[in-house]
Amino acid sequence: MHRTKVRVATDVLDANETIARANRADFDNAGVRVVNLMSAPGAGKTTLLERVLIDGLDGVRPGVLEGDVQGSLDAERISALHVPVTQLNTDPGFGGECHLDANMVRSAIGAMALAELDLLVIENVGNLVCPAEFRVGEDARAMISAVTEGEDKPLKYPLMFRTCELVVINKIDLLPHLDFSMERFLENLDRVNPGVEHMLCSARTGEGVGVFAHWLEELARREAPATAE
Amino acid sequence: MHRTKVRVATDVLDANETIARANRADFDNAGVRVVNLMSAPGAGKTTLLERVLIDGLDGVRPGVLEGDVQGSLDAERISALHVPVTQLNTDPGFGGECHLDANMVRSAIGAMALAELDLLVIENVGNLVCPAEFRVGEDARAMISAVTEGEDKPLKYPLMFRTCELVVINKIDLLPHLDFSMERFLENLDRVNPGVEHMLCSARTGEGVGVFAHWLEELARREAPATAE
Repeated sequence: MHRTKVRVATDVLDANETIARANRADFDNAGVRVVNLMSAPGAGKTTLLERVLIDGLDGVRPGVLEGDVQGSLDAERISALHVPVTQLNTDPGFGGECHLDANMVRSAIGAMALAELDLLVIENVGNLVCPAEFRVGEDARAMISAVTEGEDKPLKYPLMFRTCELVVINKIDLLPHLDFSMERFLENLDRVNPGVEHMLCSARTGEGVGVFAHWLEELARREAPATAE
Repeated sequence: MHRTKVRVATDVLDANETIARANRADFDNAGVRVVNLMSAPGAGKTTLLERVLIDGLDGVRPGVLEGDVQGSLDAERISALHVPVTQLNTDPGFGGECHLDANMVRSAIGAMALAELDLLVIENVGNLVCPAEFRVGEDARAMISAVTEGEDKPLKYPLMFRTCELVVINKIDLLPHLDFSMERFLENLDRVNPGVEHMLCSARTGEGVGVFAHWLEELARREAPATAE
């Protein structure tokens, strides 16, 4: 029973990996760099994106793929900023999945004008577990951890923190009102992903948002690898 | 392809329902009422439970089943209060599941001294999607939504808010520092689960925690149904 379960899970992840490579090849051919943006529900992914898009990215044409179980609230917020946005709902077609997978993203590629983009931000479903297990064809993974969620989150959701190359620590405007030790959070982060890049920001006040925007600009300017990963 | 996927999902949920009924029968036979406590990561489930358990429940002997992907941080916090606690990790045995299901809870029943309990609180994995899909044998479902997560969460994760009979709105001590309209949140909640019971609290300051404790006491005193659900 246990062996069967593991084997099936491996098959699913193998199939996902194959489709993710196909997505990555399409993105590379179009000259689009892709970031998979993940967090718990309500950590501030959309608000941070709004801030970045309002200020603009220097020399970079961004697009957004919004992943949600239901609805298009976030896509409407991004669309109001005149940035190309595509909504992907995991509810009707996939049975209410708690994450995006490579096949879902593949199904949306036709709807996106990749030739007009330099950078695609894929906003994943709010969840600290399964999104970390499914590559979707991204060049980089970034996650947002809000200080309101507590210092222990890297230890409780290690795969998410371990598979990212950037951790954005958001809602720092609330630090004076919380029992949150940044030192302990960073120690916990270092235990699961030693040396990972991190930055502090408040999407609400705008503090530190420029540093994240700069990171996105640098990502958009990365050379595509000679062969897709 | 789509049909197959739906059929498999239905089979899984059917199998889960059968095991959940067996769990429920065991809980009923032991005279234990069970609440499935759910929320996003970092909404304050454990802190709220700690507060309730420190103050004590009037005439009720509580126990806790802690669901986590990895680690036993929360179980250690509860254990320090001298309350019986059992840790259930979804990582090693189940491949890193993002939720508890009935079979996982069944595997833990033997480790719990049900005869010594009146109320079992099952703290689910922090996630607003999949935990709502899997009954585990509970009498009631309660969820915690932190005001820091924003007003839109009932619309974005409707199944979770719809399948609960209690919504605890936590972290209200932070309201003065947030752009959060309680009125809009409650309107959104009413759209997905009209008339659902809700209460406001701050696990940090203790405000409103007694109301939740009272709800748990009332749950513990409910009569078991004549036949298991």
